[in-house]
Amino acid sequence: MTYRVGIINVTGFAGMEAARLLWNHPGARITAITGRSLAGQKLGEAFPHLAVYGDFLITAEIEGDVDIVFSALPTAASAVACEPFIRAGLKVIDIAADFRLKDPAAFREWFGQEHPAPDLLDQAVYGLPELNREAISRASLVANPGCYPAAAILALAPAVAAGLVGDQIIVDAKSGISGAGRGSGGSFGYSEVNEDVSSYKIGRHNHQPEIAQELGGLREGPAPKVTFVPHLVPMTRGIHATCYAPLARPVTQAEVDEIYGEFFRDAAFTRVVKTPPHTKHTLGSNRCLVHAAVDERNGVLVAIGVLDNLVKGAAGQAIENMNLMLGLPQKAGLDLAAVYP
Amino acid sequence: MTYRVGIINVTGFAGMEAARLLWNHPGARITAITGRSLAGQKLGEAFPHLAVYGDFLITAEIEGDVDIVFSALPTAASAVACEPFIRAGLKVIDIAADFRLKDPAAFREWFGQEHPAPDLLDQAVYGLPELNREAISRASLVANPGCYPAAAILALAPAVAAGLVGDQIIVDAKSGISGAGRGSGGSFGYSEVNEDVSSYKIGRHNHQPEIAQELGGLREGPAPKVTFVPHLVPMTRGIHATCYAPLARPVTQAEVDEIYGEFFRDAAFTRVVKTPPHTKHTLGSNRCLVHAAVDERNGVLVAIGVLDNLVKGAAGQAIENMNLMLGLPQKAGLDLAAVYP
Amino acid sequence: MTYRVGIINVTGFAGMEAARLLWNHPGARITAITGRSLAGQKLGEAFPHLAVYGDFLITAEIEGDVDIVFSALPTAASAVACEPFIRAGLKVIDIAADFRLKDPAAFREWFGQEHPAPDLLDQAVYGLPELNREAISRASLVANPGCYPAAAILALAPAVAAGLVGDQIIVDAKSGISGAGRGSGGSFGYSEVNEDVSSYKIGRHNHQPEIAQELGGLREGPAPKVTFVPHLVPMTRGIHATCYAPLARPVTQAEVDEIYGEFFRDAAFTRVVKTPPHTKHTLGSNRCLVHAAVDERNGVLVAIGVLDNLVKGAAGQAIENMNLMLGLPQKAGLDLAAVYP
Amino acid sequence: MTYRVGIINVTGFAGMEAARLLWNHPGARITAITGRSLAGQKLGEAFPHLAVYGDFLITAEIEGDVDIVFSALPTAASAVACEPFIRAGLKVIDIAADFRLKDPAAFREWFGQEHPAPDLLDQAVYGLPELNREAISRASLVANPGCYPAAAILALAPAVAAGLVGDQIIVDAKSGISGAGRGSGGSFGYSEVNEDVSSYKIGRHNHQPEIAQELGGLREGPAPKVTFVPHLVPMTRGIHATCYAPLARPVTQAEVDEIYGEFFRDAAFTRVVKTPPHTKHTLGSNRCLVHAAVDERNGVLVAIGVLDNLVKGAAGQAIENMNLMLGLPQKAGLDLAAVYP
Repeated sequence: MTYRVGIINVTGFAGMEAARLLWNHPGARITAITGRSLAGQKLGEAFPHLAVYGDFLITAEIEGDVDIVFSALPTAASAVACEPFIRAGLKVIDIAADFRLKDPAAFREWFGQEHPAPDLLDQAVYGLPELNREAISRASLVANPGCYPAAAILALAPAVAAGLVGDQIIVDAKSGISGAGRGSGGSFGYSEVNEDVSSYKIGRHNHQPEIAQELGGLREGPAPKVTFVPHLVPMTRGIHATCYAPLARPVTQAEVDEIYGEFFRDAAFTRVVKTPPHTKHTLGSNRCLVHAAVDERNGVLVAIGVLDNLVKGAAGQAIENMNLMLGLPQKAGLDLAAVYP
Repeated sequence: MTYRVGIINVTGFAGMEAARLLWNHPGARITAITGRSLAGQKLGEAFPHLAVYGDFLITAEIEGDVDIVFSALPTAASAVACEPFIRAGLKVIDIAADFRLKDPAAFREWFGQEHPAPDLLDQAVYGLPELNREAISRASLVANPGCYPAAAILALAPAVAAGLVGDQIIVDAKSGISGAGRGSGGSFGYSEVNEDVSSYKIGRHNHQPEIAQELGGLREGPAPKVTFVPHLVPMTRGIHATCYAPLARPVTQAEVDEIYGEFFRDAAFTRVVKTPPHTKHTLGSNRCLVHAAVDERNGVLVAIGVLDNLVKGAAGQAIENMNLMLGLPQKAGLDLAAVYP
Repeated sequence: MTYRVGIINVTGFAGMEAARLLWNHPGARITAITGRSLAGQKLGEAFPHLAVYGDFLITAEIEGDVDIVFSALPTAASAVACEPFIRAGLKVIDIAADFRLKDPAAFREWFGQEHPAPDLLDQAVYGLPELNREAISRASLVANPGCYPAAAILALAPAVAAGLVGDQIIVDAKSGISGAGRGSGGSFGYSEVNEDVSSYKIGRHNHQPEIAQELGGLREGPAPKVTFVPHLVPMTRGIHATCYAPLARPVTQAEVDEIYGEFFRDAAFTRVVKTPPHTKHTLGSNRCLVHAAVDERNGVLVAIGVLDNLVKGAAGQAIENMNLMLGLPQKAGLDLAAVYP
Repeated sequence: MTYRVGIINVTGFAGMEAARLLWNHPGARITAITGRSLAGQKLGEAFPHLAVYGDFLITAEIEGDVDIVFSALPTAASAVACEPFIRAGLKVIDIAADFRLKDPAAFREWFGQEHPAPDLLDQAVYGLPELNREAISRASLVANPGCYPAAAILALAPAVAAGLVGDQIIVDAKSGISGAGRGSGGSFGYSEVNEDVSSYKIGRHNHQPEIAQELGGLREGPAPKVTFVPHLVPMTRGIHATCYAPLARPVTQAEVDEIYGEFFRDAAFTRVVKTPPHTKHTLGSNRCLVHAAVDERNGVLVAIGVLDNLVKGAAGQAIENMNLMLGLPQKAGLDLAAVYP
């Protein structure tokens, strides 16, 4: 049997990446796609890189029956669009940020608005299989992780879960520009962004509480303090999260290697590497590479996670979650080498 | 049945791209890989983007039985390495330039050395299925096209075959830097190449006679005169061949569209587009996009071909040829959307 | 004495580049700057790279007396803004395209509108000192060359003037993205443009008649036929014009070298080089590098011109013209090494 | 009077950048340049971007009398080359790392070799005028700061000097590739570096003790603990140092602004900005932009410094130091706008 997938907002970068990957999925196929401004156009013509889809029509709303819905809309709009499908009992994966924070008050604080459907927050499962595989398998509503949090949480999770590090965590993340979305003009113009590095929303990005919440769930006690600073670097895809945390006790590099190796022993896509990883080694694939180094001199753990923000940081992660929710093999459609160079 | 593929020199960009694509091939799998300097290493460790291959060993020579051999060695070295397999009756695809020029004298002139196995030139088929599908299907030895010629020939073939254009052809090609090969230091260092465009080997690149030879085969009379100027542009992958030819007779844009559409009606991977194509719309895929525009004011045809130099310009084309040679579906393993953005 | 310069539309890339360069000019200083949307803001704050200007105010109109006006407005708007200054007898340099084509009918054909001040066209001098130094020195109104034409004309002028080439000329130009202007969103977003080459306006760009007009002025008879195809490549600054023309008679490389060397013997900023030039070697400077190669096999001259589109292709050229118009040394303020790497 | 400058190793990126900037210096001119592999060649031909220098000869050793020597050799080689000039009483600026660490034992530990001239360490002044202007003015030997330390120290100095922050400092730095030097092949090839971010030498880079030493000099007590992680991002020039330190006491953003503004009130090139700075706003100039933000929620100070690694991080800084050492105006030859976009 082939499952039917509907994608809400296929015309953004995350939505079109889901379409790219699902084309080769052995157990699911896209049967409905929406896109506000491009409704009525053919997917393969509107986006020549998706020419394989030929004249598959973009519609204004999901048409026909589907087994699962991906939403790649912006925050808040996404919850509104997902809500009827959720209440109708369909399986839903929200690639936006709407169902990630468990606390409606936190949503209000960080997003500056009321949550559109706070009663649904309880049933949402945070869709990071390295932490929550079983819960995702049983979920009807999955909150797909943010691109920055995916990298940072995977880098830090083994250390936090093992109690290796203290409470004061720094996450310095570098992102390719595709994270800003399609057709982002003005300050994301090529001439402005090329040969430039800058930071933004220092300590104010809504991925900060998401990281803190999920790390907090890995151990007893209050959530750790996370200072998150995102940066834009001149590349299209890729996230490199460099995380710093004081060691809670003296540890050797060998002990850290053991803990990290053990934590990800059965991970489908996350792999611990012995040398500092390159974002480029994950491009186009669902892989996350993690590296943890002990700065013994200063008593600091440096934990790095790298991934492709549009794959493991968005659409690929959504497909991995879909596989689990539908009982398909976890790697179905995602067993790919990275595109290099 | 799954065919067994051997790759000579998997450690160059073309070889590793073949490995990337063959990982998902439904009818063939790699069983032997060679690489001079990295023999004894594991493919998945030497090249982290190929981690899916895990501890598959790189060896010094092809080990075990294979059904078909790809050679991704440099020119001349490739013919030497291929020769025993060819003489043993195996199917061979040479991704290097050794078996492309039919005339050993032309090889001597453009490559500055004697051909290592001139008696084999006759049996080599030029591996561009849009021109030679039947011959490739029956071939034992296929000369995989050069990256520049693949783009230029596909752009010009319909016009030349239809007698639309005269003899004096200009091919101005822009290439990403991966065409220079892996670990190309010095003048291909990032700092030197970034924010730079330059040309090289004006009228002296050995792809020039290859283009002329194949275009010449499309019509009666002598081969056209081709002036070929390659350029390097600051990107990793992609070739954009802009070709100029005087119109042999007045034609309308509509007539050109008809001729081009007809020529590629059954092409598996080459598609005619109505607006100037973007290299980025082919990245990571085996697609070639062709666009032909009539400059009526000046009586010139402008024909453009764009592709990914490592896929349709190298490894993907080799797999397409393999599919034809082995009787597999032409698109097997290559039915992919491009990676965008 | 220090001349006073007014810049209309300092907020575009050409305008701000003029401000950058004039900061170090020994004989002129900016005393008035306009910018529609940013009027009332301080130049050094609106554009941090111009922090040297501190709180110099951007105004809506040129305020105070000036000796010379640069206009960096878009086409047509520029002529309208320049007109009162021209009629008042001030020296004016139009960086836009409004006063380049001598024939109002050509303006109508290529720009799709009536020229706002056709009676002023006669007095405009085309501001390329390598061709028109004396006329520029006596001019009150200078039409600053387009970025593409500057590179193409300088590459071809010696050959056309010497009668070396025939009438059918191809100009294949590659440009950095800054040519598209500041804040160009949508299709010039970083994610869309990075790792991409594409062409646009094939045979329809309004720089085509500009090139033909100026080359035509170098010899008897009708203007040559010029097919111009602009391309965008993923870099910020730089133009590489590769020009192709059939040889009118057999010539040797040595003869071409002699003709080119002679033509530019006294040029202030254009230099003939023996190997294919790199755009990067001109970045940030007013230099143009020219290279001409004979493809003897095919009877074609390949002539290349490279420059920084914002300097020799816009603001630097305007300052060079200003120097001539005001009787200042031609290199004043422009005697700079390029920024490399 | 015009001072005579000798540059040892003009053929590296730092050396050639010094040549670029000194071309326009009003009070100094280069009279001798060395370069091992290119001795006997003309500077303007070997490096076309320095064509203004024409046929100025590169020699094997400094020839003729000079007033001041810049050394841009690699570490250890630099001290050896500088030593005779120092002992002869000439003013010397070492752009390499040889005279930065005060303690020969630290040199041994971090550089893995004995210092070639430990007795000279005492007289070396660390050449960061924002900290040491007076001492530099009286110095004969200046140790020019490393590119990373220049950015990090300027970002952190006001906070450390004011006792705002505790001892556990994180410096996460992002650098353009030109920091790796000219002709860096292999792992710095364009194809390998483009679209990639990676870290290296985590906690092991020799700039780490340099940062700690200089910050330690700003206050009583032991040097702070600095964990330094350098990253490479795909751009040519620019450093973005993002520094994190726990607040030693509660402070408001306004208080931090006051302290930073006061600290740099008289700085010639370092400027405090209110929004996160862009490396691109400093390209080609000697400017450093500093931004400090309080993460009140977590009690962390985030301090950012950005600069052009080849200018304020190398050659421009050297010229600024030269100006002070020779009694020239501090900004002489360096009063430039940045090159943007």
